[in-house]
Amino acid sequence: MNATATIALEDRLRIDELYARYAACLDDGRFAEWPDFFTDECTYRIVPRENYDRGLPLATLSFESKGMLRDRVYAITETLFHEPYYQRHLVSGILAEPDDGGFRVRANYLVIRTKAGSLSEVYSAGRYLDHIVDDAGTLRFREKLCIFDSELIPNSLIYPL
Amino acid sequence: MNATATIALEDRLRIDELYARYAACLDDGRFAEWPDFFTDECTYRIVPRENYDRGLPLATLSFESKGMLRDRVYAITETLFHEPYYQRHLVSGILAEPDDGGFRVRANYLVIRTKAGSLSEVYSAGRYLDHIVDDAGTLRFREKLCIFDSELIPNSLIYPL
Amino acid sequence: MNATATIALEDRLRIDELYARYAACLDDGRFAEWPDFFTDECTYRIVPRENYDRGLPLATLSFESKGMLRDRVYAITETLFHEPYYQRHLVSGILAEPDDGGFRVRANYLVIRTKAGSLSEVYSAGRYLDHIVDDAGTLRFREKLCIFDSELIPNSLIYPL
Repeated sequence: MNATATIALEDRLRIDELYARYAACLDDGRFAEWPDFFTDECTYRIVPRENYDRGLPLATLSFESKGMLRDRVYAITETLFHEPYYQRHLVSGILAEPDDGGFRVRANYLVIRTKAGSLSEVYSAGRYLDHIVDDAGTLRFREKLCIFDSELIPNSLIYPL
Repeated sequence: MNATATIALEDRLRIDELYARYAACLDDGRFAEWPDFFTDECTYRIVPRENYDRGLPLATLSFESKGMLRDRVYAITETLFHEPYYQRHLVSGILAEPDDGGFRVRANYLVIRTKAGSLSEVYSAGRYLDHIVDDAGTLRFREKLCIFDSELIPNSLIYPL
Repeated sequence: MNATATIALEDRLRIDELYARYAACLDDGRFAEWPDFFTDECTYRIVPRENYDRGLPLATLSFESKGMLRDRVYAITETLFHEPYYQRHLVSGILAEPDDGGFRVRANYLVIRTKAGSLSEVYSAGRYLDHIVDDAGTLRFREKLCIFDSELIPNSLIYPL
């Protein structure tokens, strides 16, 4: 089970830092930098847990390339009409194992949302199921799946999780 | 105070992974696997902070062997009438020191609960005070004490924390 | 970006432990020990994100020396009239880099508050921007900046974050 750690300490630290930088990027609202956390060929999906557990394909958001991620950033920053809000990511329980030249990672996340003039509140809780690869010396997401626990579809889901 | 780290890096990583796997097990609802995180002789208690701080023995839940943990799993999955809910654990601030051939660990936890058709919400916050031992190459809990901050007794406390 | 980790593993572990001990100190209510997490010359400020992002100097709390921190502890424990509450810190996404003989660190925090007879609730979410130095073998904060996301000024902010 855990006679020895499943990955090298150095790799574990790099993975921790990837999640920390990813959270900092989104929480700072630096959305233009968000696609660079992904490889050119990539998948990013936000899926309700109910659907995921039942094997249903419906996703709240689904992007299939870095170009689509950039389109999303353009929508967020230029065209989507929405009330702005702050995000704050807490990520915990990172579990990584080597896979296919990279790492399969799962982690729990909690996003706290703060709207203008309001108190901070629980916004989304769930888990990441990710595939990370070493892209010429930089760890990037080839796949990122955000499975959120609440069955309620957050129609106000604007920013990436 | 911290001229050198109190435990070896490799041990720290193993302990981190134990808490991550423990959270993943509960949050996935894989309750049948939960007792295997404990040694055969073990203690698992959930205690209100008010009682713990005053040295009062009353516990919300108290189990004294792996057999009792298995009984609890049976109750959860077969006999207890309850509304199901999802749990999501965030664990932070893990502090470990060597003790009695194992490790004394304290950590903060937050559990977010999601009921069907509802938004995710803060369910329980508190700290773990644990004794971990190396059980033939696998880290397991010999003692796990969950001290929750709210004085309100959560009568809907069904799943382990 | 992250071809190699930005700091040594051993330093990363020491920094993690500093934040864990800091959270444990505050969450246990051991306020008298809190100033010892800082160097004699130090800065501790709690600032709304709105003000920080606009470069406005207004802070909710601002202390400029360890002596002022001790005065605050005296106020908390002896003179300030307030309803007591429990705090629970979750800290995540620690990013550290060497700077000026110490480390610049950013981290996300979430504080859960529990008042007597009430459920636990989200109290404050935000980020730390800190400068840590090695003070004769012990890591201490020379600067600690707590930037909270909510624009609402928490007039009930009594204990340190």
